[in-house]
Amino acid sequence: MARGKFITFEGPEGAGKSTHLTLLAEHLRKTGLPVITTREPGGTPLCESIRELLQFNAAGEAPGNRAEVLLFLASRAQLVERIIRPALERGTWVLCDRFCDSTFAYQGFGRAMDLDLLRHLNAFATHDLMPDRTIFLDIPQQESRIRLAQRQGAADRFEAEQESFHARILNGFRVLAKATPERILQIDSSGTTTQTESKIWNAIKPLIQVAKEQS
Amino acid sequence: MARGKFITFEGPEGAGKSTHLTLLAEHLRKTGLPVITTREPGGTPLCESIRELLQFNAAGEAPGNRAEVLLFLASRAQLVERIIRPALERGTWVLCDRFCDSTFAYQGFGRAMDLDLLRHLNAFATHDLMPDRTIFLDIPQQESRIRLAQRQGAADRFEAEQESFHARILNGFRVLAKATPERILQIDSSGTTTQTESKIWNAIKPLIQVAKEQS
Repeated sequence: MARGKFITFEGPEGAGKSTHLTLLAEHLRKTGLPVITTREPGGTPLCESIRELLQFNAAGEAPGNRAEVLLFLASRAQLVERIIRPALERGTWVLCDRFCDSTFAYQGFGRAMDLDLLRHLNAFATHDLMPDRTIFLDIPQQESRIRLAQRQGAADRFEAEQESFHARILNGFRVLAKATPERILQIDSSGTTTQTESKIWNAIKPLIQVAKEQS
Repeated sequence: MARGKFITFEGPEGAGKSTHLTLLAEHLRKTGLPVITTREPGGTPLCESIRELLQFNAAGEAPGNRAEVLLFLASRAQLVERIIRPALERGTWVLCDRFCDSTFAYQGFGRAMDLDLLRHLNAFATHDLMPDRTIFLDIPQQESRIRLAQRQGAADRFEAEQESFHARILNGFRVLAKATPERILQIDSSGTTTQTESKIWNAIKPLIQVAKEQS
């Protein structure tokens, strides 16, 4: 049996990641493929506890830069070991909302941490697992801020950061996409949901053919 | 003003670390030195939340080996940045119950993870801060198991591990002490509390003289 494919969704907040992850999962399931969806940080009870420490922080104490990245990586290590790798090995496709490129964009470009160091730390956490394809939903910064403002609930610690932080992150995703175009598919997400859905489906369809030929 | 000294306490569970940390703090304070005490994982509200995930895990899900070490390091990074380094810089001595050598002994020797890799990860988490002196309380394994059995409460995830795991850890501490005798002071803790207290005080006294000459 062929190994499942691992597809991650990346981009700034408000770019439509979770919406399009759900839509792609439906498309894939209609072709008969087994699919699971998950998110980062999170995806297991332990990882959801780590997510709370990172985002809302009931203790009222924000992690410093190094503690922050180590908490993200702890959640990733657990998710890969318990959920993602076993699924891929039994032939299930895995769609994940955020993964390594968020570390590179947020902590590397956003917090100015060394990218090579982050790559090494990430390789340790994932035991060298990389996505087969990454959907980077690209959207102008002012558009993502408008979409975010329409959401319910209080802003989390990342949403509440300054505009310049979010500008560095968006630029970071674009730099990463340009550097690894064979893996990261940069998709304009500023149109309608249907338009973006269609672009993603056209980008992923060839991978299904590859997977069928491998099996 | 001279930088404070950083002293860590290491050894197996039941070796008397927290007792002797408290006693050494009292000795140092009597000489007029400013001293704070802390512990790992823990020492800040965020770090105490991480401790719960590591030890008791309310979510009922044990972290895998990589997630485990990353959680320990996240707690260490936060403790160093928020508590230990600022204290040392204002001239305060810091006594810490467990630090990097527990990572090397538990994850390196106990869980068979690569020691060089752990050293690199630890250097990232601590931003290269190492203890000035480490008190390794050495005690025969059967003795520490007897002391542990006399404690109140349920065993945590580490205490509940097999004897062979604890044997590898004790051996690990001994190997580390042999490799870096200028930092790690191996002290036999199988005698009475007063005997061990006296050995520790004699081992640390020279450091006070050094600190006075530096100031």
